[in-house]
Amino acid sequence: MDRRSFLRTSAVGGAAAATTSLAAPAYAQGNRTLTLVTTWGRGLAGVHDAAQHVADSITAMSDGSLTIDLRAAGELVGAFEVFDAVTSGQADMYHGADYYFVNQHPGYAFFTAVPFGMTAQELVNWYYHMGGHELHDELGQIFGLKSFLAGNTGAQAGGWFRSEITSPEDFNGLRFRMPGLGGQALGRLGASVQNLPGAEVYQALASGAIDGTEWIGPWADQSAGFQEITQTYYTAGFHEPGAGLSLATNREVFEELSPAHQKIIEVAAAEAHQWSLSQFLSNNGSALQQLVNGGVQVREFPDSVWDAFGQASNEVLEEYMSDELFARIRESAMESMASSSSWITAAEGTYRTQRDRVLG
Amino acid sequence: MDRRSFLRTSAVGGAAAATTSLAAPAYAQGNRTLTLVTTWGRGLAGVHDAAQHVADSITAMSDGSLTIDLRAAGELVGAFEVFDAVTSGQADMYHGADYYFVNQHPGYAFFTAVPFGMTAQELVNWYYHMGGHELHDELGQIFGLKSFLAGNTGAQAGGWFRSEITSPEDFNGLRFRMPGLGGQALGRLGASVQNLPGAEVYQALASGAIDGTEWIGPWADQSAGFQEITQTYYTAGFHEPGAGLSLATNREVFEELSPAHQKIIEVAAAEAHQWSLSQFLSNNGSALQQLVNGGVQVREFPDSVWDAFGQASNEVLEEYMSDELFARIRESAMESMASSSSWITAAEGTYRTQRDRVLG
Repeated sequence: MDRRSFLRTSAVGGAAAATTSLAAPAYAQGNRTLTLVTTWGRGLAGVHDAAQHVADSITAMSDGSLTIDLRAAGELVGAFEVFDAVTSGQADMYHGADYYFVNQHPGYAFFTAVPFGMTAQELVNWYYHMGGHELHDELGQIFGLKSFLAGNTGAQAGGWFRSEITSPEDFNGLRFRMPGLGGQALGRLGASVQNLPGAEVYQALASGAIDGTEWIGPWADQSAGFQEITQTYYTAGFHEPGAGLSLATNREVFEELSPAHQKIIEVAAAEAHQWSLSQFLSNNGSALQQLVNGGVQVREFPDSVWDAFGQASNEVLEEYMSDELFARIRESAMESMASSSSWITAAEGTYRTQRDRVLG
Repeated sequence: MDRRSFLRTSAVGGAAAATTSLAAPAYAQGNRTLTLVTTWGRGLAGVHDAAQHVADSITAMSDGSLTIDLRAAGELVGAFEVFDAVTSGQADMYHGADYYFVNQHPGYAFFTAVPFGMTAQELVNWYYHMGGHELHDELGQIFGLKSFLAGNTGAQAGGWFRSEITSPEDFNGLRFRMPGLGGQALGRLGASVQNLPGAEVYQALASGAIDGTEWIGPWADQSAGFQEITQTYYTAGFHEPGAGLSLATNREVFEELSPAHQKIIEVAAAEAHQWSLSQFLSNNGSALQQLVNGGVQVREFPDSVWDAFGQASNEVLEEYMSDELFARIRESAMESMASSSSWITAAEGTYRTQRDRVLG
């Protein structure tokens, strides 16, 4: 770690330091400001909100003794530079989607989403009770990070297309924005896949640099304005069935914090996961209705396309199985998914079916 | 409020008080211990865990400046006495299911569950982003409480029966344990409904004082041991599709806390909701498998029974609509449920159907 970060952000805070120094004299003393860089352009609906929410929670719960200074994408470093910025100590924390960093390690995909993987609730079950967080931490140790889930978009929409998709062949040659392993799967169907930060997608689609894009779901997509460019919208996708957002802290910085500050970061991140997921889900219904009222055509991929998504996704995942940690993460995630999914289907699934039938 | 509570739990904490007193001199100073009473027998799987989890989070995040002393049901007051204990100031907080208190106000049902109401995710969407928390707070003001969601069981099982249920008539004369408005709906089908705290249900069923019971779901039910008494288990129920657990603080006590301590309680409670829900959901799949392996017969109610549940539930809810606040809560909840459910069905619902189909 670059020590400048620590020196820059440390300051003795006078009387306010007393609590921490008495309780844990070995930890760094005084009020601290930690710099949080994000993969999100300032103001991007939902994702920037999640980063701001966790920053505000930490600052408020610590009574300002741990203040989080949020720098959105481009304000200190670029969206995809946050990983290097935090591992090098240039910044103290990042908030982002960890599948942007599959080139650092493909295992990071599981902490956002993998194609045909976990829904948001299945991810949470795995993360907090079935070994997910421990595996996230094992990945983080490789890079000097301490990572936490800190947001979720819910199941993402299939995305925006210039024209209808009727068969897997329609992806051949299509220039499409999709990050992570989902994007790699689309590449196997012949698509020319682009990985663009959120803040750059609208311009790429408007200029014709790409033919289509997925972003998140109705609320965030409407806010980004994609309906101004095309009106063909697929509401269900294969690629991100419950995309987690992460808060990662430089591990040396984290370990210098008092146990109370460490706990504040841990709990604030987890609470932000729930707050963020419910923000997306509470806004998507009305946003979709507005999009439809504005002329957007809502579609679903035919079964033949889902079959091709499934085969391509499996091929992509299999390709990484020679990596021992990737294989361990995948097996843990899939075992957890099967177990928690079985009960969700039996209880909530049956209930929802009956509720729809009885209430009409 | 009885002032003894505040005096008993206040103490000047020396140097540790400095931070709070400098930042907010108007608030009570020093380390504090708040007494948390619960509706759960000590060690009851999942529900006691949620109470302990939120207590531990608050204590750890505040570095012990706000220590939560948990007294399980029967240790200070009985399970159903916690509401009066906190409103009177005998205790500072309770953790429990607010539908135990529908006799105080029927609107409390919505903050646990109402029959044919919201799933856990729909409840969260409403609570944090569509007005639910504000309505919970409005209810709390009537009684001098400050309330937060702080746990969730997920969709509850239909419960344990001595024999199979083939028609609505089978509920006629059945002595069955079910709290809240769900229990009142069963009463309309002719059942003799009992409202027993969790710790007393096993004995009532074993002794034959009741013919059947719902409790929570496979993991908590197995832990309670109901499979030792009967082996007929309905996995989906109409009565609690996502039962929230609440943390309620005496409002005077809450308002005397510093903003940082207030925020710690708020965030710890919300994080406990997610932690608790995922604890239940991550354990239910394997517990159900063990129950089945042990000879439990898993069943689903026929459509005719669901229809009767639906009609009875609607009658019960309609009965309270002359209460202005109840009506406002119900309308807010149902509007939110319809909106967030529409997107969940379109995106996650379609995804899960396709995932099941493609992965087999």
